[in-house]
Amino acid sequence: MLERYRVRTDLALENSEKYEKDQAELSGVVIHRRENREKEITTTVVKIETDSGARAMGKPKGTYITLEAPNMKVPDRGFHREVSRELASHLKKMLPRKKDAVLVVGLGNRKITPDALGPCAVEHLRITRHILREYGERALGDERTPMISALVPGVMAQTGMETQEILQGVVRETRPDVILVIDALAARSTRRLNCTIQLTDTGISPGSGVGNYRCGLNMETLGVPVIGIGIPTVVDAGTIVHDAVSDLLESLEDAELDEFLAELISPSLREMFVTPKDIDDTISRLSFTISEGINLALSQR
Amino acid sequence: MLERYRVRTDLALENSEKYEKDQAELSGVVIHRRENREKEITTTVVKIETDSGARAMGKPKGTYITLEAPNMKVPDRGFHREVSRELASHLKKMLPRKKDAVLVVGLGNRKITPDALGPCAVEHLRITRHILREYGERALGDERTPMISALVPGVMAQTGMETQEILQGVVRETRPDVILVIDALAARSTRRLNCTIQLTDTGISPGSGVGNYRCGLNMETLGVPVIGIGIPTVVDAGTIVHDAVSDLLESLEDAELDEFLAELISPSLREMFVTPKDIDDTISRLSFTISEGINLALSQR
Amino acid sequence: MLERYRVRTDLALENSEKYEKDQAELSGVVIHRRENREKEITTTVVKIETDSGARAMGKPKGTYITLEAPNMKVPDRGFHREVSRELASHLKKMLPRKKDAVLVVGLGNRKITPDALGPCAVEHLRITRHILREYGERALGDERTPMISALVPGVMAQTGMETQEILQGVVRETRPDVILVIDALAARSTRRLNCTIQLTDTGISPGSGVGNYRCGLNMETLGVPVIGIGIPTVVDAGTIVHDAVSDLLESLEDAELDEFLAELISPSLREMFVTPKDIDDTISRLSFTISEGINLALSQR
Amino acid sequence: MLERYRVRTDLALENSEKYEKDQAELSGVVIHRRENREKEITTTVVKIETDSGARAMGKPKGTYITLEAPNMKVPDRGFHREVSRELASHLKKMLPRKKDAVLVVGLGNRKITPDALGPCAVEHLRITRHILREYGERALGDERTPMISALVPGVMAQTGMETQEILQGVVRETRPDVILVIDALAARSTRRLNCTIQLTDTGISPGSGVGNYRCGLNMETLGVPVIGIGIPTVVDAGTIVHDAVSDLLESLEDAELDEFLAELISPSLREMFVTPKDIDDTISRLSFTISEGINLALSQR
Repeated sequence: MLERYRVRTDLALENSEKYEKDQAELSGVVIHRRENREKEITTTVVKIETDSGARAMGKPKGTYITLEAPNMKVPDRGFHREVSRELASHLKKMLPRKKDAVLVVGLGNRKITPDALGPCAVEHLRITRHILREYGERALGDERTPMISALVPGVMAQTGMETQEILQGVVRETRPDVILVIDALAARSTRRLNCTIQLTDTGISPGSGVGNYRCGLNMETLGVPVIGIGIPTVVDAGTIVHDAVSDLLESLEDAELDEFLAELISPSLREMFVTPKDIDDTISRLSFTISEGINLALSQR
Repeated sequence: MLERYRVRTDLALENSEKYEKDQAELSGVVIHRRENREKEITTTVVKIETDSGARAMGKPKGTYITLEAPNMKVPDRGFHREVSRELASHLKKMLPRKKDAVLVVGLGNRKITPDALGPCAVEHLRITRHILREYGERALGDERTPMISALVPGVMAQTGMETQEILQGVVRETRPDVILVIDALAARSTRRLNCTIQLTDTGISPGSGVGNYRCGLNMETLGVPVIGIGIPTVVDAGTIVHDAVSDLLESLEDAELDEFLAELISPSLREMFVTPKDIDDTISRLSFTISEGINLALSQR
Repeated sequence: MLERYRVRTDLALENSEKYEKDQAELSGVVIHRRENREKEITTTVVKIETDSGARAMGKPKGTYITLEAPNMKVPDRGFHREVSRELASHLKKMLPRKKDAVLVVGLGNRKITPDALGPCAVEHLRITRHILREYGERALGDERTPMISALVPGVMAQTGMETQEILQGVVRETRPDVILVIDALAARSTRRLNCTIQLTDTGISPGSGVGNYRCGLNMETLGVPVIGIGIPTVVDAGTIVHDAVSDLLESLEDAELDEFLAELISPSLREMFVTPKDIDDTISRLSFTISEGINLALSQR
Repeated sequence: MLERYRVRTDLALENSEKYEKDQAELSGVVIHRRENREKEITTTVVKIETDSGARAMGKPKGTYITLEAPNMKVPDRGFHREVSRELASHLKKMLPRKKDAVLVVGLGNRKITPDALGPCAVEHLRITRHILREYGERALGDERTPMISALVPGVMAQTGMETQEILQGVVRETRPDVILVIDALAARSTRRLNCTIQLTDTGISPGSGVGNYRCGLNMETLGVPVIGIGIPTVVDAGTIVHDAVSDLLESLEDAELDEFLAELISPSLREMFVTPKDIDDTISRLSFTISEGINLALSQR
């Protein structure tokens, strides 16, 4: 029997939209949207509060904050500082009270342009752990900052190891209070690519940015709070076909449609992703926007 | 009025298949196919001999040799030496009689993984021009080799210049006898990605690999023979939607279908490309296969 | 007979210091130094006005402006914007009156960290030529900017061509009004590494940053004004030995010393360079400082 | 008081030469040298057998095998396969009997050319752990191979963590039977750069390649056998001054000389390294030589 073709999105916002479209009630999920017209940033907070909400959304219980800023697509010499500030303000609220040691993890494959967001963002971070441990607080002058460490673990094809295995070991040795995980995500809609930031206290599923599901990185698996920060940079190739065709075939029942699509969308397409032609500049810019957001959030205690 | 949506392919082979499928006669185009079962390489030679053939194919008159080797997708410690040898043997026949100075150009954007094929391939080439000019033939021992130079001009978003402008200048100064241009191509079918090499004496249209049409690089524009060597590494995002939908709508007339698709395939999709998730290893491997083919062809005079 | 060992420096400032030290008169050379204590930037203007001055200095006639800012060695989130501004103000004065088309060239080898300054700086530039040519001035909104193009020609071992040959061709095709050439330089003193910017209207000698003397890039060879912008990132390995030993042997006559040193400093050492252990961060930061200086100078007409 | 200036070398071979030069007896150290004239490889085995030998050599007890192959400096299309084979044969003998799971670690900073040897070598390895765990032995066909995993931990300035901390965690989670650690080393003599491979069963001191001493990676700290594989790619800048000057001052007593040199060699020089101007090609080539040696050793059980 054919596997159902499942449209994948890493954005809680997009899961919730499906329900809005259907005008279905989504119990256990609370959604707030706020628009800042001056800065042109729309902020949506999706709170999944119950198990049934989690099932309906296909995402774990927790808070998902999405910043949508269409201007992020436009080159900007300041690397979109106003978005960094917005990100920093949400991140500060999400950090646990004890945050003396922060581990930042840049997921993804630095050799594939749209998947290099995490590794690139980590490059611009201010790393302080080794300095504070060797010279103490005075080494950094007036600035108060936690011990910040960072890791770019690589992807399974490069390491042969699950990211979870690598991080479990590193967490046990270095005992951070909180982990920030940066990853490239997959969106459902090409419209959202590279102009949306999702921040969540539920951690992240590494590799999902380009489609290989790996075990989750979260409080349960790592033993400390894990905050996921992601930007959608790709859409699954099957998804754009799915969407085009399902519009055509609105009359079909959902079940029929799924079966039909599973046949139409070839397995080879499932091993492909879609990304914009200017993804190089985009990743270079967005990695700064994120790292600056983190730098701001961690230095302004 | 809506522009027709045009499915793009850089492979002459794929243009000709359309006609084969329609069982249409294609006057002015001669096609020969040869299969080497032992090496698992299929070689197709498409010769476009007349202007009407060129119009039908949407490609300039000339010879297009396509090597299809499904094994190229599989990692191989020898970087597919048998494909390199096959490429070298065809390339040698295509080179002009006078080939004392060869300029190799690696087109594409080294910062976008599937577009980095040209820049990567050039890195593995044996560059000899500066040695031969300074020390003469004896510097290279017994080996007889032409003066080989190379350039990675970058893409227009990085340089602000057409590749044609850059090459016209360099050709005028350094006067090569022949130019080899290596580029990532766009295929129509995902099945052909990363396992097909096209070799043509008609030059190449730079940037076409990711869809920005630039002025051609060929005998007319550069004043010396230009041989194009390309591997399809991406499919236009619109194309996979086009193909999925047109299968559904076979009953429509062609003109209706085009109009319908032009509406369906959003402009944003036209700025996107589709590529496999393991494109990093693929580019690393294929760039060796090509550079080794060129190294072999130029050293074995 | 032994070749004299020649200590190499690309900084006019260091040539002039030799004379200051010897309290020798240096006719035909005018030197002005100005210190900005607040910004901690020392600016030295060396004007070589006569042929005898040029011979004594071992540098062509022209103006050499050196900014020394020890703070440039310190990481700075703003990429040393105050240095960028100082650079921009000098650069604006040095630009010719007609500057509607500017070509920026990033010299050096992007694969060798201290030599990657030019290629990295070019990545952060705002390239406008292709936009202005296609859409006209209105495409850039209110901003008035010249047509900016850029090229990273690569080094001779990669291209087989002299940089001069490549640029002569490109200049003939694209006819810029002025060329800015960015290069990593060699200093004599390790103290100057990565905290000194030299700006000169005499152009530059590509490859000198890591020691391969190439034909000059200047008004004579390229036909348009050439402004050189460089930061010393390496010291020749022979130089640090030379300096250590010559201190020991002050009693020797100069000629004896040179002969002695030529014997002491092995040829293999001449193929080596010295650079700091944190050169990766340094290049990443300084390339921004320079590109931002250029961006500021060209947009503020 | 002045710290003595200590010439640093990571090569046991160079430590032992000092004694050979002085014709001093070196008790507890056994040295065997074998020359293969045909292959032009000299193999030296240094066995440090006693604590006094270890003190005299400044290196832990164990076996150090050095391959010297001057041809490694010459470009070679086969990436010096004969050296890879020699390396593989020694490595196989050094592997413990149980070697079903092998972790390979690429130390060093991939952004500094001479320090990128480890990260580059790891890229060419055949990683099998994830495949064997998911699909079992049959997934790899006839080939018998251990579970191979790999990690590029980064340097402390990037991570804020000791490499030891990272590896301790990863080893605890993934339980390899043996660890291979690849690192760029510092030599004392520029003559040895890039043409010498050291293989040792005593593990390695990460960061030593560019001079930051970190805690050791070895059986004691990681709990499993650690084999170090290194190539000297840099010389400390102080060392070349030391050697030049000490030749001049042979008449001085050792203690006087050390004091004198400590004054002469400025602290800034200690933060610098010396490396050849063609280090880019060299690292690209040598990383293949090493990875191929490992691939051969691990597949030929």
